[in-house]
Amino acid sequence: MTQPLWQKSGVQIDAKIMQFLAGDDVLLDREFFLHDITASKAHVEGLAHIGVVSADEAMALKRELDALAGDFRSGAFVLDDRYEDGHSAIEARLTERLGDAGRRVHTGRSRNDQILVATRLWLKEQLATLQAHCRAIAQVCLDRAAQPAVPLPGYTHLQRAVVSSTAMWFAGFAEGFIDNALRAQQTSTWIDANPLGTAAGYGVNLKLDREHTTQVLGFARMQISPVYAQLSRGKFEMAVLEAIASALLDLRRLAWDLSLFTTAEFNFVKLPGEYTTGSSIMPNKRNPDVVELLRASYASVAAARTEIEQLLSLPSGYQRDLQFSKGSLFHGCRHGLAALELVPDLLARMEWNERAMRAAIEPAMYATDVAIEQAAAGVPFRDAYRAAAETAASAGQGRTPESSLAARVSPGAGHDLRLDELRGRLRALDD
Amino acid sequence: MTQPLWQKSGVQIDAKIMQFLAGDDVLLDREFFLHDITASKAHVEGLAHIGVVSADEAMALKRELDALAGDFRSGAFVLDDRYEDGHSAIEARLTERLGDAGRRVHTGRSRNDQILVATRLWLKEQLATLQAHCRAIAQVCLDRAAQPAVPLPGYTHLQRAVVSSTAMWFAGFAEGFIDNALRAQQTSTWIDANPLGTAAGYGVNLKLDREHTTQVLGFARMQISPVYAQLSRGKFEMAVLEAIASALLDLRRLAWDLSLFTTAEFNFVKLPGEYTTGSSIMPNKRNPDVVELLRASYASVAAARTEIEQLLSLPSGYQRDLQFSKGSLFHGCRHGLAALELVPDLLARMEWNERAMRAAIEPAMYATDVAIEQAAAGVPFRDAYRAAAETAASAGQGRTPESSLAARVSPGAGHDLRLDELRGRLRALDD
Amino acid sequence: MTQPLWQKSGVQIDAKIMQFLAGDDVLLDREFFLHDITASKAHVEGLAHIGVVSADEAMALKRELDALAGDFRSGAFVLDDRYEDGHSAIEARLTERLGDAGRRVHTGRSRNDQILVATRLWLKEQLATLQAHCRAIAQVCLDRAAQPAVPLPGYTHLQRAVVSSTAMWFAGFAEGFIDNALRAQQTSTWIDANPLGTAAGYGVNLKLDREHTTQVLGFARMQISPVYAQLSRGKFEMAVLEAIASALLDLRRLAWDLSLFTTAEFNFVKLPGEYTTGSSIMPNKRNPDVVELLRASYASVAAARTEIEQLLSLPSGYQRDLQFSKGSLFHGCRHGLAALELVPDLLARMEWNERAMRAAIEPAMYATDVAIEQAAAGVPFRDAYRAAAETAASAGQGRTPESSLAARVSPGAGHDLRLDELRGRLRALDD
Amino acid sequence: MTQPLWQKSGVQIDAKIMQFLAGDDVLLDREFFLHDITASKAHVEGLAHIGVVSADEAMALKRELDALAGDFRSGAFVLDDRYEDGHSAIEARLTERLGDAGRRVHTGRSRNDQILVATRLWLKEQLATLQAHCRAIAQVCLDRAAQPAVPLPGYTHLQRAVVSSTAMWFAGFAEGFIDNALRAQQTSTWIDANPLGTAAGYGVNLKLDREHTTQVLGFARMQISPVYAQLSRGKFEMAVLEAIASALLDLRRLAWDLSLFTTAEFNFVKLPGEYTTGSSIMPNKRNPDVVELLRASYASVAAARTEIEQLLSLPSGYQRDLQFSKGSLFHGCRHGLAALELVPDLLARMEWNERAMRAAIEPAMYATDVAIEQAAAGVPFRDAYRAAAETAASAGQGRTPESSLAARVSPGAGHDLRLDELRGRLRALDD
Repeated sequence: MTQPLWQKSGVQIDAKIMQFLAGDDVLLDREFFLHDITASKAHVEGLAHIGVVSADEAMALKRELDALAGDFRSGAFVLDDRYEDGHSAIEARLTERLGDAGRRVHTGRSRNDQILVATRLWLKEQLATLQAHCRAIAQVCLDRAAQPAVPLPGYTHLQRAVVSSTAMWFAGFAEGFIDNALRAQQTSTWIDANPLGTAAGYGVNLKLDREHTTQVLGFARMQISPVYAQLSRGKFEMAVLEAIASALLDLRRLAWDLSLFTTAEFNFVKLPGEYTTGSSIMPNKRNPDVVELLRASYASVAAARTEIEQLLSLPSGYQRDLQFSKGSLFHGCRHGLAALELVPDLLARMEWNERAMRAAIEPAMYATDVAIEQAAAGVPFRDAYRAAAETAASAGQGRTPESSLAARVSPGAGHDLRLDELRGRLRALDD
Repeated sequence: MTQPLWQKSGVQIDAKIMQFLAGDDVLLDREFFLHDITASKAHVEGLAHIGVVSADEAMALKRELDALAGDFRSGAFVLDDRYEDGHSAIEARLTERLGDAGRRVHTGRSRNDQILVATRLWLKEQLATLQAHCRAIAQVCLDRAAQPAVPLPGYTHLQRAVVSSTAMWFAGFAEGFIDNALRAQQTSTWIDANPLGTAAGYGVNLKLDREHTTQVLGFARMQISPVYAQLSRGKFEMAVLEAIASALLDLRRLAWDLSLFTTAEFNFVKLPGEYTTGSSIMPNKRNPDVVELLRASYASVAAARTEIEQLLSLPSGYQRDLQFSKGSLFHGCRHGLAALELVPDLLARMEWNERAMRAAIEPAMYATDVAIEQAAAGVPFRDAYRAAAETAASAGQGRTPESSLAARVSPGAGHDLRLDELRGRLRALDD
Repeated sequence: MTQPLWQKSGVQIDAKIMQFLAGDDVLLDREFFLHDITASKAHVEGLAHIGVVSADEAMALKRELDALAGDFRSGAFVLDDRYEDGHSAIEARLTERLGDAGRRVHTGRSRNDQILVATRLWLKEQLATLQAHCRAIAQVCLDRAAQPAVPLPGYTHLQRAVVSSTAMWFAGFAEGFIDNALRAQQTSTWIDANPLGTAAGYGVNLKLDREHTTQVLGFARMQISPVYAQLSRGKFEMAVLEAIASALLDLRRLAWDLSLFTTAEFNFVKLPGEYTTGSSIMPNKRNPDVVELLRASYASVAAARTEIEQLLSLPSGYQRDLQFSKGSLFHGCRHGLAALELVPDLLARMEWNERAMRAAIEPAMYATDVAIEQAAAGVPFRDAYRAAAETAASAGQGRTPESSLAARVSPGAGHDLRLDELRGRLRALDD
Repeated sequence: MTQPLWQKSGVQIDAKIMQFLAGDDVLLDREFFLHDITASKAHVEGLAHIGVVSADEAMALKRELDALAGDFRSGAFVLDDRYEDGHSAIEARLTERLGDAGRRVHTGRSRNDQILVATRLWLKEQLATLQAHCRAIAQVCLDRAAQPAVPLPGYTHLQRAVVSSTAMWFAGFAEGFIDNALRAQQTSTWIDANPLGTAAGYGVNLKLDREHTTQVLGFARMQISPVYAQLSRGKFEMAVLEAIASALLDLRRLAWDLSLFTTAEFNFVKLPGEYTTGSSIMPNKRNPDVVELLRASYASVAAARTEIEQLLSLPSGYQRDLQFSKGSLFHGCRHGLAALELVPDLLARMEWNERAMRAAIEPAMYATDVAIEQAAAGVPFRDAYRAAAETAASAGQGRTPESSLAARVSPGAGHDLRLDELRGRLRALDD
């Protein structure tokens, strides 16, 4: 490894300790490396504005930063444990290529604000991806809710309750994922603040052009206080993981439905073959593994959030504990977003088994309809309820799933799904 | 207890089982009882619009609901385990007083949407309180940041790093709590949707006037899908707890600072006597218990969130598991908001010990200033850094905390706190 | 409230702050009050051994402590917010009745070791209850596993896999709850150490007779180090909650099975009527609420554990943060043990629906039997597997659930359940 | 990748889905690969005992398994994404080298019990390592506690309370880590059960020699029920992580102490240079990064536990969700054990700064001694307490830290540390 930037002479470094300190930090830094380069370019421009680097140096530095980004993308440059971390790698490369100009690049910044700004840019990307996935899921749900509805038993307590429909089921998840997209948007607004220029949490004796870096990096505002920039480490990461988790929470319930609906007992849904796998011992099995892993993905996001949460019982100011937030963040975002990415196709391609669904609708499921009809006709509801309870078994006389759904006229229910309003909300996210 | 609404003849109820089912549900329902009454009034108006209750009945029902609210507030009516839950208590009272009109009040709704709407109204109140507390904290921080700054050592890794100031410290938490207030606002926007009229999750065969109830209950929009209304149970509660937790996360770090600053070793802060307590065995002790409990309050919010999170691995549709979300929610909100409420006064009244703070600023803390000055003068930063490291012990020559702060001209730092901009952001929350 | 023990003159107490400090502490102390009295008696005896109280005083103090315990049990003495906490209440009562002897009772102890020892005694009781519940569950499972087995589909991925049986299902949970009982026992052994006599974490200048208190309080050993006594606060509570959670983890899976098995679609299990409830709107519903709350109870234990875990990022020595561990502990233990208590009866009384279970066993579920038979006959298993996969649909020819189970001769499987060995393990817990 | 074992013709595999299914599973399997080979050898022996493979085949299979282990260790065989997982890799290699004998190796087992047994062996190793680390830490603590004690302020609420000593501090952590070692041992006993031979959770129609595999694999007992073998997946992993977490909980508090003690303000401890690092911007900094990462390591273990906990809300029987437990387990164990491994050296080499520690002991810290002395002389303690409170500032007259410690005669305190008893408990773990 290259000499750490801060290395003092006379202290021997113990290999086991260095390994513990480094962890797999430099590998994680690959994830943020291009963002670090982008922010470094903005920092160089800012330094040029205040004369710390000359215009020529700035041009050279930016050119080399672009070249490094290119080499990293192409694989010509590999970020590995030759470097203490990604930040050191950038400075080492610039110094190797440009000498003194490279040695100037860290002026007025600290690894503390450098990782903050790279992570912030990366978080915004993750939230954009989250929003895109949620919108794609909502769109597929709306499309399928608009297809001719097939009757589906509606459950409470996993017990057959009243008639529902595939359209109601899809519309429910559509509204959920519209909300999840909105939350991604809100969270992005919330964290959209530039920490670059706050150094180690106390600012510096240089008139850094933070307005410029805020603007060229595309932030909505400056994160003003250097003390708060440090306090936001972990706090913002948690908010992003919570936004992802909110979507995964709905996905967990959706996957639970599919896990039940694909049992032989329910038999309501057939998944395309690619979503299933076999067993190493049981020749007869086709298992809905994808659905189970979608359900399980919530756990990875939750774990990542827990890891950061557990770190954050600290006084203000940077503490090395926060290093572990990087790996957690990456773990949670990667698992969560990979799961969401698969959902639109899965929902578009799953097939309902209409015959089994109709067979599962039993006469007593019309008892609520009966009671409410009588209530509408003047019988006090509590009396109508008791009467309907006694004759529940024959509640289906003269009724079909279709007639039940057609009479379900309360806004949002089978006869009045209000998909246009939901579509409007989805479109409104663009603004 | 009154007979459960759904009680069928012929089934004996086992006391131990009933106790397990009921828990302390009816006591928790006290918290939501007035909201339940408010929503019941809106429901009655909606039923009147579609002719399920007459205008006279509606007027009588609303009058009795108001009377019940009054009796509850005055203590004339006690909600206790004579009732299965708060919902049953309302229906029982209306039926007792108004006969058939009371038996009609549950028409078209379920306890499922009834608890949803009462909780939703309650959650919005909690978020308003959260926002108010966060704004009050931010305001005190801004006020104290505007007072003449006293030098304070700035720490990283709890090691003395560079000169900071009381103004920078307060400004940092000000920006944090402005963000926390914003998040409360965003979360309130996110959950501001009316679930009343979705019944047990599948709607009903009545043209319920959901636009009316949405409007009179002050919701920004209707929660359209009955399926989603059920999916949002727990999901919205978690979002509210996360918004509270975000504020408590900053409070935990603030309390950590105060816990250290009030040690004899740091001795930077003196708390008013009311915030300390004594020991049962050690006559000499004055302990900053309030600060410690402020720090600990995060745990209660986190626990509440965990309890709900653990419940939510479920298929769609209502499941009884969700009953436990009520107690958790109440536990987390109560602890979290009680802690935040104490903070403005504490911050307004804590006193800095300037002498100890100045004494803690040692010469090497100016080394960064030296290195950056040289970088500004043309020495490549990495070289300036190495030079400054070697002469760190003498870095203080000719420097004072004041001169260091005055030279800290990067935006947000000691010389350029930008309190006006922070004040502007705080005011902007009003809009 | 009585004056706090540590109250100094001249400091006004603010009501809101006092409320925040006190929380519902004194109510929680009711739970530990009798244990506190028991430990106080032992402490008095110890003080008498070293001459700090006279033999007469000791007798009087113990008599009054017994009287207080009696009054508390009978309701003649109510522990409420007249007192700062339970400890103060004891001292106040003894002083009121016995004057100086009462003022001597706190000699050599602190509320720190007083709450530690009361909690420790209480924790041991909880673990004994946990063990008893787990053993009762295991016993019922073993009894039912010994009844004539009914074929039950065996699932993996919730897909029908191979033939299983009610006996195998019960035997599985029997072994699980034997393990859970063992863990309760191990945990009890682990925490079975007396903290009384460690004062505020640093011991005292009195030769306290800790051997005596260790013995009369029934502890297996002394917790030697006062520093460690404080470090064990929260740590031991977490271990107890983890032991309860381990049992609840199995219960959650058992309850999931019952939740599925009681759906109309599976229809394998019928619960006695007492375990189900109805709906406020749907006249036709009977819901397995008890099963759902059993499943949900894990969440309460997990939340309690989280609350304590979140508190424990602290330096050594007592900190007030730990106060919140009391409420959490009580919440988790109460919910967890109440759930387990209901299980033996539920399992003893649930009924299998043999017809539905047999109907759910389909021919392809014998394919694994076929493949393994061929492997036993010399065909390489991977080839036998491929062949059986192709003919899976006809694998049932000449086979019955009974013949499949009879051939399942691997130890622990249908033909060789080894219930005697499990019974032996259960009995061995006595030793 | 090689064809999955269960691949059926006619179904196209989608790359994105396969990637989601596979995750980094095969890389994780490297961790368990040697254990899988060990268990496979035992399985082959068992198959030979019942004639499914011939003696010659068994010998050849075991030879090839040993060769594969050797190749894996040497790097000649690399387990990578050419294989679906480690299990498939083993079968593929044996089949490639030995033809039909290789195709027989999976007879009577499933990947379900294969991963269970490999993980179980691995878990036992982790617990042995945990125990060794805890014992090493306890030993160093005992050694240093036996060195001449230096006075150290004893804190409660981070406020100076009474005189303590370095010996008391070390003895406290010694007792803690003895307990942690005991818990590792208990947990190892608890999970020491052989799942091999339970197949996919329902046993097989072969008289597998499970007694033999139990014995040769070194398990204390057979995990009898195949249903329970599946239920224990995740449950046992959590118990192991909880045992590690228990040690890390103490380590978190120890690291907190060191983090405070190494501040300039406390200045009680000096760490060897290898345990500190520098800053990228501040030339003057030496930061105790190792201590901070030790403190933070609890978070990684907690996160791993959370991830598994969140997965386990499932019916009985294997579900694919459990796949995610592998990565979590590895993450938590690796971080946790790596942290503990560094502690003995750190504790052995840290240096106390006696001068600063003595300076921090102020007169009022003797007030408790004064009060108790008077109580011992006959003054009721509560009166003695009040008197001592009023004269606390002068409590130090005629007293020294040494005299205070010498008088601290309660068992476990400064004058009576009982290190021999602690040493005895540590040794007793061997038995």
